[in-house]
Amino acid sequence: MSKIPDSAKKVFSGVIFDVWQWEQEMYDGTHATFERVSRPSTVEVIMTVGDKIVIQRQSQPDRAEPFLSLVGGRVEVGEDMLEAAKRETLEETGYVSEDWELVSARQPSGKIDWTISLYVARNAKKVSEQNLDAGEKIELLMLTFDEILTMVNRGELRRMDQSARIDLIHAFYDPEIRKKWETLIFKR
Amino acid sequence: MSKIPDSAKKVFSGVIFDVWQWEQEMYDGTHATFERVSRPSTVEVIMTVGDKIVIQRQSQPDRAEPFLSLVGGRVEVGEDMLEAAKRETLEETGYVSEDWELVSARQPSGKIDWTISLYVARNAKKVSEQNLDAGEKIELLMLTFDEILTMVNRGELRRMDQSARIDLIHAFYDPEIRKKWETLIFKR
Repeated sequence: MSKIPDSAKKVFSGVIFDVWQWEQEMYDGTHATFERVSRPSTVEVIMTVGDKIVIQRQSQPDRAEPFLSLVGGRVEVGEDMLEAAKRETLEETGYVSEDWELVSARQPSGKIDWTISLYVARNAKKVSEQNLDAGEKIELLMLTFDEILTMVNRGELRRMDQSARIDLIHAFYDPEIRKKWETLIFKR
Repeated sequence: MSKIPDSAKKVFSGVIFDVWQWEQEMYDGTHATFERVSRPSTVEVIMTVGDKIVIQRQSQPDRAEPFLSLVGGRVEVGEDMLEAAKRETLEETGYVSEDWELVSARQPSGKIDWTISLYVARNAKKVSEQNLDAGEKIELLMLTFDEILTMVNRGELRRMDQSARIDLIHAFYDPEIRKKWETLIFKR
Protein backbone atom coordinates (compact mmCIF):
# COMPACT_ATOMS: atom_id res chain seq x y z
CA MET A 1 0.00 0.00 0.00
CA SER A 2 2.99 2.30 -0.48
CA LYS A 3 2.28 5.69 -2.00
CA ILE A 4 5.70 5.63 -3.65
CA PRO A 5 6.11 3.81 -6.99
CA ASP A 6 8.95 1.31 -7.54
CA SER A 7 10.56 3.65 -10.05
CA ALA A 8 11.03 6.38 -7.41
CA LYS A 9 14.53 7.34 -6.28
CA LYS A 10 15.40 8.37 -2.74
CA VAL A 11 16.80 11.90 -3.07
CA PHE A 12 17.22 12.66 0.65
CA SER A 13 17.61 10.59 3.84
CA GLY A 14 16.86 12.40 7.08
CA VAL A 15 16.59 11.44 10.73
CA ILE A 16 12.81 10.96 10.37
CA PHE A 17 11.86 11.84 6.81
CA ASP A 18 13.14 10.46 3.51
CA VAL A 19 12.23 12.20 0.23
CA TRP A 20 11.45 10.31 -2.99
CA GLN A 21 11.05 11.57 -6.57
CA TRP A 22 10.00 10.04 -9.85
CA GLU A 23 9.08 11.14 -13.37
CA GLN A 24 5.32 10.85 -13.77
CA GLU A 25 3.62 10.76 -17.16
CA MET A 26 0.83 13.32 -17.25
CA TYR A 27 -2.53 13.11 -19.04
CA ASP A 28 -1.18 14.93 -22.12
CA GLY A 29 1.91 12.68 -22.46
CA THR A 30 4.35 15.18 -20.92
CA HIS A 31 6.32 14.27 -17.78
CA ALA A 32 6.71 16.04 -14.43
CA THR A 33 8.76 15.32 -11.30
CA PHE A 34 6.48 13.98 -8.57
CA GLU A 35 7.56 13.86 -4.94
CA ARG A 36 6.55 12.10 -1.73
CA VAL A 37 8.10 11.83 1.70
CA SER A 38 8.18 8.71 3.84
CA ARG A 39 8.49 8.42 7.58
CA PRO A 40 8.75 5.39 9.89
CA SER A 41 5.52 3.62 10.74
CA THR A 42 4.06 4.46 14.12
CA VAL A 43 1.94 2.49 16.59
CA GLU A 44 -0.83 3.69 18.89
CA VAL A 45 -2.24 1.68 21.78
CA ILE A 46 -5.60 1.87 23.53
CA MET A 47 -4.47 0.26 26.82
CA THR A 48 -6.97 -0.80 29.46
CA VAL A 49 -6.42 -1.39 33.19
CA GLY A 50 -9.59 -2.83 34.71
CA ASP A 51 -12.43 -0.66 33.40
CA LYS A 52 -10.17 2.33 32.70
CA ILE A 53 -8.32 3.43 29.57
CA VAL A 54 -4.80 4.79 29.98
CA ILE A 55 -3.79 7.85 28.00
CA GLN A 56 -0.87 10.19 28.47
CA ARG A 57 -0.16 13.87 28.93
CA GLN A 58 3.11 14.34 27.12
CA SER A 59 5.66 17.14 26.89
CA GLN A 60 8.35 17.34 24.22
CA PRO A 61 11.38 19.64 24.31
CA ASP A 62 10.42 21.57 21.14
CA ARG A 63 6.76 22.17 22.07
CA ALA A 64 5.53 24.91 24.40
CA GLU A 65 2.42 23.04 25.54
CA PRO A 66 1.87 19.46 26.73
CA PHE A 67 -0.65 17.42 24.73
CA LEU A 68 -2.83 14.37 25.31
CA SER A 69 -2.28 11.22 23.30
CA LEU A 70 -2.60 7.48 23.29
CA VAL A 71 0.38 5.38 24.32
CA GLY A 72 2.60 4.81 21.27
CA GLY A 73 5.58 5.80 19.19
CA ARG A 74 7.79 5.08 16.25
CA VAL A 75 8.59 1.59 14.94
CA GLU A 76 12.35 0.93 15.01
CA VAL A 77 14.37 -0.74 12.26
CA GLY A 78 13.93 -4.52 12.40
CA GLU A 79 10.82 -4.39 14.58
CA ASP A 80 7.37 -5.49 13.51
CA MET A 81 4.37 -3.37 14.49
CA LEU A 82 3.27 -5.48 17.44
CA GLU A 83 6.81 -5.65 18.87
CA ALA A 84 7.01 -1.87 18.64
CA ALA A 85 3.62 -1.49 20.34
CA LYS A 86 4.70 -3.74 23.21
CA ARG A 87 8.07 -1.98 23.59
CA GLU A 88 6.57 1.52 23.55
CA THR A 89 3.90 0.48 26.03
CA LEU A 90 6.46 -0.94 28.45
CA GLU A 91 8.79 2.07 28.10
CA GLU A 92 6.12 4.74 28.39
CA THR A 93 3.93 3.14 31.05
CA GLY A 94 5.74 0.20 32.72
CA TYR A 95 2.74 -2.00 31.86
CA VAL A 96 2.43 -5.25 29.90
CA SER A 97 -0.64 -6.94 28.43
CA GLU A 98 -1.30 -10.54 27.37
CA ASP A 99 -4.30 -9.57 25.24
CA TRP A 100 -3.40 -7.59 22.11
CA GLU A 101 -5.60 -6.94 19.08
CA LEU A 102 -4.89 -4.94 15.92
CA VAL A 103 -7.72 -2.47 15.30
CA SER A 104 -6.53 -0.84 12.07
CA ALA A 105 -3.48 0.02 9.99
CA ARG A 106 -4.01 3.19 8.02
CA GLN A 107 -2.12 5.66 5.83
CA PRO A 108 -3.41 9.02 7.11
CA SER A 109 -1.86 11.32 4.55
CA GLY A 110 -2.04 11.72 0.78
CA LYS A 111 1.53 12.82 0.07
CA ILE A 112 3.33 10.96 2.87
CA ASP A 113 4.14 7.28 3.01
CA TRP A 114 3.35 6.65 6.67
CA THR A 115 1.32 3.90 8.36
CA ILE A 116 -0.31 4.17 11.79
CA SER A 117 -1.20 0.83 13.37
CA LEU A 118 -3.75 1.08 16.17
CA TYR A 119 -3.89 -1.67 18.81
CA VAL A 120 -5.98 -2.52 21.84
CA ALA A 121 -3.99 -3.91 24.81
CA ARG A 122 -6.45 -5.22 27.39
CA ASN A 123 -6.07 -5.80 31.15
CA ALA A 124 -2.55 -4.44 31.36
CA LYS A 125 -0.50 -5.04 34.53
CA LYS A 126 2.25 -2.85 35.91
CA VAL A 127 5.62 -4.63 35.93
CA SER A 128 8.14 -1.76 36.11
CA GLU A 129 8.57 2.00 36.22
CA GLN A 130 8.47 4.15 33.08
CA ASN A 131 11.71 4.12 31.09
CA LEU A 132 11.61 7.39 29.14
CA ASP A 133 14.24 8.81 26.83
CA ALA A 134 15.68 12.29 27.20
CA GLY A 135 13.09 13.79 24.84
CA GLU A 136 9.99 12.59 26.73
CA LYS A 137 8.02 13.64 29.80
CA ILE A 138 4.91 11.52 30.18
CA GLU A 139 2.20 11.55 32.84
CA LEU A 140 -0.38 8.73 32.74
CA LEU A 141 -4.12 9.40 33.07
CA MET A 142 -6.68 6.63 33.75
CA LEU A 143 -10.10 7.50 32.39
CA THR A 144 -13.44 5.82 31.80
CA PHE A 145 -14.66 5.14 28.26
CA ASP A 146 -17.24 7.94 28.75
CA GLU A 147 -14.53 10.40 29.75
CA ILE A 148 -12.48 9.41 26.68
CA LEU A 149 -15.46 9.92 24.36
CA THR A 150 -16.13 13.35 25.86
CA MET A 151 -12.48 14.38 25.49
CA VAL A 152 -12.35 13.18 21.87
CA ASN A 153 -15.65 14.91 21.15
CA ARG A 154 -14.36 18.22 22.58
CA GLY A 155 -11.10 18.00 20.61
CA GLU A 156 -9.02 17.65 23.79
CA LEU A 157 -7.72 14.22 22.74
CA ARG A 158 -6.91 14.66 19.06
CA ARG A 159 -3.49 13.04 18.68
CA MET A 160 -4.49 9.69 17.23
CA ASP A 161 -5.20 8.10 13.87
CA GLN A 162 -7.79 10.50 12.45
CA SER A 163 -10.10 7.72 11.20
CA ALA A 164 -10.28 6.29 14.72
CA ARG A 165 -10.83 9.79 16.11
CA ILE A 166 -13.69 10.35 13.69
CA ASP A 167 -15.20 6.97 14.52
CA LEU A 168 -15.07 7.82 18.24
CA ILE A 169 -16.91 11.08 17.48
CA HIS A 170 -19.60 9.00 15.74
CA ALA A 171 -19.61 6.80 18.87
CA PHE A 172 -20.36 9.87 21.00
CA TYR A 173 -23.66 10.31 19.13
CA ASP A 174 -24.54 6.82 17.87
CA PRO A 175 -25.23 4.07 20.45
CA GLU A 176 -24.48 1.25 17.97
CA ILE A 177 -21.02 2.60 17.10
CA ARG A 178 -20.42 3.26 20.78
CA LYS A 179 -21.28 -0.34 21.65
CA LYS A 180 -18.97 -1.61 18.90
CA TRP A 181 -16.01 0.33 20.36
CA GLU A 182 -16.81 -0.61 23.95
CA THR A 183 -16.88 -4.30 22.96
CA LEU A 184 -13.64 -3.94 21.01
CA ILE A 185 -11.79 -2.13 23.78
CA PHE A 186 -13.02 -4.13 26.79
CA LYS A 187 -14.21 -7.38 25.12
CA ARG A 188 -17.48 -7.01 27.00
CA MET B 1 2.73 29.67 13.92
CA SER B 2 5.62 27.86 12.22
CA LYS B 3 6.60 24.49 13.65
CA ILE B 4 10.21 25.14 12.65
CA PRO B 5 12.43 27.19 15.00
CA ASP B 6 14.52 30.10 13.69
CA SER B 7 17.70 28.16 14.39
CA ALA B 8 16.73 25.38 11.93
CA LYS B 9 18.72 24.90 8.74
CA LYS B 10 17.17 23.81 5.45
CA VAL B 11 18.97 20.55 4.57
CA PHE B 12 16.93 19.65 1.45
CA SER B 13 14.83 21.59 -1.09
CA GLY B 14 12.39 19.51 -3.13
CA VAL B 15 9.66 20.20 -5.66
CA ILE B 16 7.03 20.16 -2.88
CA PHE B 17 8.79 19.35 0.39
CA ASP B 18 11.70 21.08 2.11
CA VAL B 19 13.45 19.41 5.07
CA TRP B 20 14.71 21.34 8.11
CA GLN B 21 16.95 20.23 10.99
CA TRP B 22 18.12 21.77 14.24
CA GLU B 23 19.90 20.75 17.43
CA GLN B 24 17.34 20.48 20.20
CA GLU B 25 18.29 20.52 23.87
CA MET B 26 16.66 17.59 25.65
CA TYR B 27 15.33 17.40 29.21
CA ASP B 28 18.62 15.99 30.53
CA GLY B 29 20.81 18.67 28.89
CA THR B 30 21.97 16.47 25.99
CA HIS B 31 21.23 17.48 22.38
CA ALA B 32 19.56 15.61 19.51
CA THR B 33 18.91 16.46 15.85
CA PHE B 34 15.23 17.28 15.36
CA GLU B 35 13.62 17.36 11.94
CA ARG B 36 10.51 18.78 10.29
CA VAL B 37 9.38 19.09 6.70
CA SER B 38 7.57 22.05 5.21
CA ARG B 39 5.29 22.19 2.20
CA PRO B 40 3.52 25.09 0.46
CA SER B 41 0.30 26.33 2.02
CA THR B 42 -2.88 25.10 0.39
CA VAL B 43 -6.35 26.59 0.04
CA GLU B 44 -9.74 24.88 0.06
CA VAL B 45 -12.98 26.48 -1.08
CA ILE B 46 -16.60 25.71 -0.22
CA MET B 47 -18.15 27.28 -3.33
CA THR B 48 -21.89 27.81 -3.63
CA VAL B 49 -24.02 28.25 -6.75
CA GLY B 50 -27.58 29.13 -5.76
CA ASP B 51 -28.52 26.64 -3.02
CA LYS B 52 -25.91 24.06 -4.14
CA ILE B 53 -22.34 23.44 -3.05
CA VAL B 54 -19.80 22.58 -5.75
CA ILE B 55 -17.28 19.81 -5.07
CA GLN B 56 -15.09 17.91 -7.49
CA ARG B 57 -14.35 14.36 -8.49
CA GLN B 58 -10.66 14.46 -9.31
CA SER B 59 -8.21 12.07 -10.94
CA GLN B 60 -4.43 12.41 -10.72
CA PRO B 61 -1.91 10.57 -12.91
CA ASP B 62 -0.26 8.70 -10.00
CA ARG B 63 -3.50 7.52 -8.33
CA ALA B 64 -5.53 4.52 -9.41
CA GLU B 65 -8.87 5.86 -8.14
CA PRO B 66 -10.58 9.24 -8.48
CA PHE B 67 -11.42 11.00 -5.22
CA LEU B 68 -13.87 13.67 -4.05
CA SER B 69 -12.59 16.97 -2.72
CA LEU B 70 -13.37 20.62 -2.30
CA VAL B 71 -12.16 23.07 -4.92
CA GLY B 72 -8.60 24.11 -4.06
CA GLY B 73 -4.88 23.70 -4.48
CA ARG B 74 -1.41 24.91 -3.67
CA VAL B 75 -0.48 28.55 -3.04
CA GLU B 76 2.17 29.75 -5.51
CA VAL B 77 5.22 31.85 -4.68
CA GLY B 78 4.23 35.50 -4.29
CA GLU B 79 0.52 34.79 -3.89
CA ASP B 80 -1.48 35.41 -0.78
CA MET B 81 -4.05 32.84 0.35
CA LEU B 82 -7.11 34.62 -1.04
CA GLU B 83 -5.45 35.21 -4.43
CA ALA B 84 -4.59 31.51 -4.59
CA ALA B 85 -8.15 30.54 -3.66
CA LYS B 86 -9.58 32.77 -6.41
CA ARG B 87 -7.08 31.52 -9.01
CA GLU B 88 -7.63 27.82 -8.19
CA THR B 89 -11.40 28.33 -8.24
CA LEU B 90 -11.30 29.96 -11.66
CA GLU B 91 -8.89 27.36 -13.10
CA GLU B 92 -10.67 24.31 -11.70
CA THR B 93 -14.28 25.43 -12.19
CA GLY B 94 -14.46 28.49 -14.47
CA TYR B 95 -16.45 30.29 -11.74
CA VAL B 96 -15.86 33.56 -9.88
CA SER B 97 -17.44 34.86 -6.67
CA GLU B 98 -17.76 38.39 -5.25
CA ASP B 99 -18.43 37.11 -1.72
CA TRP B 100 -15.43 35.44 -0.06
CA GLU B 101 -14.97 34.66 3.63
CA LEU B 102 -12.06 32.98 5.42
CA VAL B 103 -13.40 30.14 7.61
CA SER B 104 -10.16 28.88 9.19
CA ALA B 105 -6.38 28.60 8.68
CA ARG B 106 -5.02 25.50 10.36
CA GLN B 107 -1.82 23.45 10.64
CA PRO B 108 -3.12 19.87 10.33
CA SER B 109 0.05 17.97 11.12
CA GLY B 110 2.47 17.75 14.05
CA LYS B 111 5.71 17.25 12.17
CA ILE B 112 4.93 19.17 8.98
CA ASP B 113 4.90 22.91 8.55
CA TRP B 114 1.82 23.23 6.37
CA THR B 115 -1.19 25.57 6.56
CA ILE B 116 -4.61 24.86 5.04
CA SER B 117 -6.82 27.95 4.61
CA LEU B 118 -10.51 27.17 4.16
CA TYR B 119 -12.74 29.71 2.42
CA VAL B 120 -16.40 30.07 1.56
CA ALA B 121 -17.09 31.57 -1.91
CA ARG B 122 -20.80 32.35 -2.17
CA ASN B 123 -23.06 32.78 -5.21
CA ALA B 124 -20.40 31.94 -7.76
CA LYS B 125 -21.04 32.66 -11.45
CA LYS B 126 -19.60 30.84 -14.42
CA VAL B 127 -17.37 33.07 -16.55
CA SER B 128 -15.20 30.60 -18.48
CA GLU B 129 -14.39 26.94 -19.08
CA GLN B 130 -12.10 24.98 -16.75
CA ASN B 131 -8.39 25.60 -17.38
CA LEU B 132 -6.71 22.46 -16.03
CA ASP B 133 -3.04 21.57 -16.06
CA ALA B 134 -1.69 18.32 -17.48
CA GLY B 135 -1.85 16.57 -14.08
CA GLU B 136 -5.57 17.21 -13.43
CA LYS B 137 -8.89 15.72 -14.50
CA ILE B 138 -11.75 17.34 -12.64
CA GLU B 139 -15.49 16.77 -12.87
CA LEU B 140 -17.76 19.17 -10.94
CA LEU B 141 -20.65 17.95 -8.77
CA MET B 142 -23.41 20.25 -7.47
CA LEU B 143 -24.91 18.99 -4.23
CA THR B 144 -27.25 20.20 -1.50
CA PHE B 145 -25.93 20.88 2.00
CA ASP B 146 -27.74 17.71 3.18
CA GLU B 147 -26.03 15.63 0.51
CA ILE B 148 -22.63 17.08 1.51
CA LEU B 149 -23.25 16.27 5.20
CA THR B 150 -24.21 12.70 4.32
CA MET B 151 -21.12 12.23 2.16
CA VAL B 152 -18.82 13.64 4.84
CA ASN B 153 -20.53 11.47 7.45
CA ARG B 154 -20.02 8.33 5.36
CA GLY B 155 -16.37 9.13 4.70
CA GLU B 156 -16.96 9.61 0.96
CA LEU B 157 -15.83 13.25 1.10
CA ARG B 158 -12.74 13.14 3.31
CA ARG B 159 -10.18 15.25 1.45
CA MET B 160 -10.47 18.48 3.38
CA ASP B 161 -9.03 20.14 6.46
CA GLN B 162 -9.66 17.47 9.10
CA SER B 163 -10.96 19.94 11.70
CA ALA B 164 -13.61 21.13 9.25
CA ARG B 165 -14.42 17.52 8.38
CA ILE B 166 -14.88 16.68 12.05
CA ASP B 167 -17.02 19.76 12.59
CA LEU B 168 -19.26 18.73 9.66
CA ILE B 169 -19.63 15.29 11.26
CA HIS B 170 -20.78 17.02 14.44
CA ALA B 171 -23.18 19.03 12.22
CA PHE B 172 -24.68 15.77 10.94
CA TYR B 173 -25.81 14.95 14.49
CA ASP B 174 -26.15 18.33 16.21
CA PRO B 175 -28.77 20.82 14.87
CA GLU B 176 -26.99 23.83 16.40
CA ILE B 177 -23.68 23.07 14.71
CA ARG B 178 -25.55 22.32 11.51
CA LYS B 179 -27.29 25.69 11.62
CA LYS B 180 -23.96 27.44 12.25
CA TRP B 181 -22.44 25.87 9.08
CA GLU B 182 -25.52 26.48 6.98
CA THR B 183 -25.48 30.16 7.98
CA LEU B 184 -21.74 30.41 7.30
CA ILE B 185 -21.94 28.74 3.89
CA PHE B 186 -25.13 30.36 2.54
CA LYS B 187 -25.38 33.47 4.76
CA ARG B 188 -28.98 32.53 5.49
